[in-house]
Amino acid sequence: MYLGIDLGATKIAMGIIDEEGRIITSERILTHRSRPADTVIEDIVVLGAEMIRGQAAGSISAAGIGVPGPVDMSTGSIINCINLGWKDIAIEGILSRGLGIPTFAGNDATLAGIAEMEAGVLKGIKTGVFLTLGTGIGGAVICEYRIQHGANNIASEIGHMIVGENFYNCSCGRNGCLETFSSATALIKYTRRLLSGKMDSSLPRGGSRNYNNRINGTMIFNSAREGDALANIAVDRVAKYLAIGIMNIVAVIDPELIVLGGGMSKAGDFFLEKIRKEAADRRYFQEIPIGEIVYGRFGQDAGLIGAGLYAGQRTRAAV
Amino acid sequence: MYLGIDLGATKIAMGIIDEEGRIITSERILTHRSRPADTVIEDIVVLGAEMIRGQAAGSISAAGIGVPGPVDMSTGSIINCINLGWKDIAIEGILSRGLGIPTFAGNDATLAGIAEMEAGVLKGIKTGVFLTLGTGIGGAVICEYRIQHGANNIASEIGHMIVGENFYNCSCGRNGCLETFSSATALIKYTRRLLSGKMDSSLPRGGSRNYNNRINGTMIFNSAREGDALANIAVDRVAKYLAIGIMNIVAVIDPELIVLGGGMSKAGDFFLEKIRKEAADRRYFQEIPIGEIVYGRFGQDAGLIGAGLYAGQRTRAAV
Repeated sequence: MYLGIDLGATKIAMGIIDEEGRIITSERILTHRSRPADTVIEDIVVLGAEMIRGQAAGSISAAGIGVPGPVDMSTGSIINCINLGWKDIAIEGILSRGLGIPTFAGNDATLAGIAEMEAGVLKGIKTGVFLTLGTGIGGAVICEYRIQHGANNIASEIGHMIVGENFYNCSCGRNGCLETFSSATALIKYTRRLLSGKMDSSLPRGGSRNYNNRINGTMIFNSAREGDALANIAVDRVAKYLAIGIMNIVAVIDPELIVLGGGMSKAGDFFLEKIRKEAADRRYFQEIPIGEIVYGRFGQDAGLIGAGLYAGQRTRAAV
Repeated sequence: MYLGIDLGATKIAMGIIDEEGRIITSERILTHRSRPADTVIEDIVVLGAEMIRGQAAGSISAAGIGVPGPVDMSTGSIINCINLGWKDIAIEGILSRGLGIPTFAGNDATLAGIAEMEAGVLKGIKTGVFLTLGTGIGGAVICEYRIQHGANNIASEIGHMIVGENFYNCSCGRNGCLETFSSATALIKYTRRLLSGKMDSSLPRGGSRNYNNRINGTMIFNSAREGDALANIAVDRVAKYLAIGIMNIVAVIDPELIVLGGGMSKAGDFFLEKIRKEAADRRYFQEIPIGEIVYGRFGQDAGLIGAGLYAGQRTRAAV
């Protein structure tokens, strides 16, 4: 069994994961990202050591950690986490020493993709893609049965594909990134923009900015499902640009399976059908089919499970 | 040695290609694309048989043909060539019978990429991309040392990646394809649009549509190089969107080498430097480098050479 760690900008999920990708036990703590990196890492070490002690001695042989940014997977160093303000951190070495077991690091979306590859819907797939739809958009691109990290560890960064022109810039400084159209953050921002206009909606609006802040993705999806026109405009826009992003991936690698994970996959068939329809309508060769678009098996747990399974992969590779 | 055939919408290039990718002899004929497919194929068979007879008996063991559209590389059938109006043509069987030697078909840009992989700048590259910049934009995506055809034979269709919003639609019916921003056709269309305005330019303009028709890509590049402001606006726009397209490919596979071929590569360093600068400025992680952007070795001959080398590849694979 392995210790899996999913480091997010808001929360850190940690769990004991078995070889089949089952979560034996798990815990969640707050990141408090304004703190220095070493204080956050200290929290991970304390909780991780406790979780390891909770299992039979020697049964946890390695740990895996997914981080929200690019990782140099050959050295195990975090290159950069914009949302955390972390840069050049040799996370594998620090955690291996702190936890007393070999620890392996990867990009969080990549590790979520590994969960689906090892034990989920992407098992045995030659060419595929996994997209995590959450606060941001991450990805894992599979070609020739392998996840693509690329020449500079910045492959599979699907959220930064440019798909149009948008009314606000991406955190990367550019305009038009998929993440600014189709993430949960993008959905909320665009809905707020619509709510500041005159269109009717069942969604809460009001003069105060704080009040508007209360809107979240789940509320918008629920309103859309109940027929709210404004919420549907916002959800349709998310689906439209996601379809453009998917078709851009098709234009590069033409995957047999396109798998959607992350928090937004909770929106269910209502959302999935919109995406499928938009993608089918946006094919560049109308008579040629594209790969199937499905939800992943592990939903929001994919990152945590993938972190554990990645530790297993690396441990086996080292033997 | 092999017979290489590069079937274009305007011209058909045919040549005898040796194992190292050298052109021993070559000829060019007009396609006259309004004719039915079998008449065009008859021309290819007649000229091909003549070229085979021109060599020592038995020295040409196979032929390869690149076509401007998607090919099912498992069956050797043309799926669709929009520019020729061809659909569902079992080209490999027809030409194998006509020429009397095994003939293998592929997408023209894919075969051009094979030329660079087998004997050019992409030799030995694990992750790379080849873009042909001509009347349209085609591509060949390399992952794990293999060209990606994809699950439905529509991978490597880089020209149909959506990179923005444009003033005219693509031949595929959609808006915003890279091909409509950065092909030679796009350069000419946008320059004409600028010339219909009031801005000064050394480029010929005039009331008549036919007169404007005389402008070609070479003239626009030459004017830009000589400092013509209007021509530079047009070339800069081509480079800007090409850089966005390149960065979108980086976001998927992060290639170590990005190779540009096709007619527009004749524009030389002047154009290449603009593309490199735009791409460097458009990185999503400013501190992380991207793969090098270079011109291919074979320029406009890549399609012809690749067709011959593909015949060699397939012949070896069959042994």
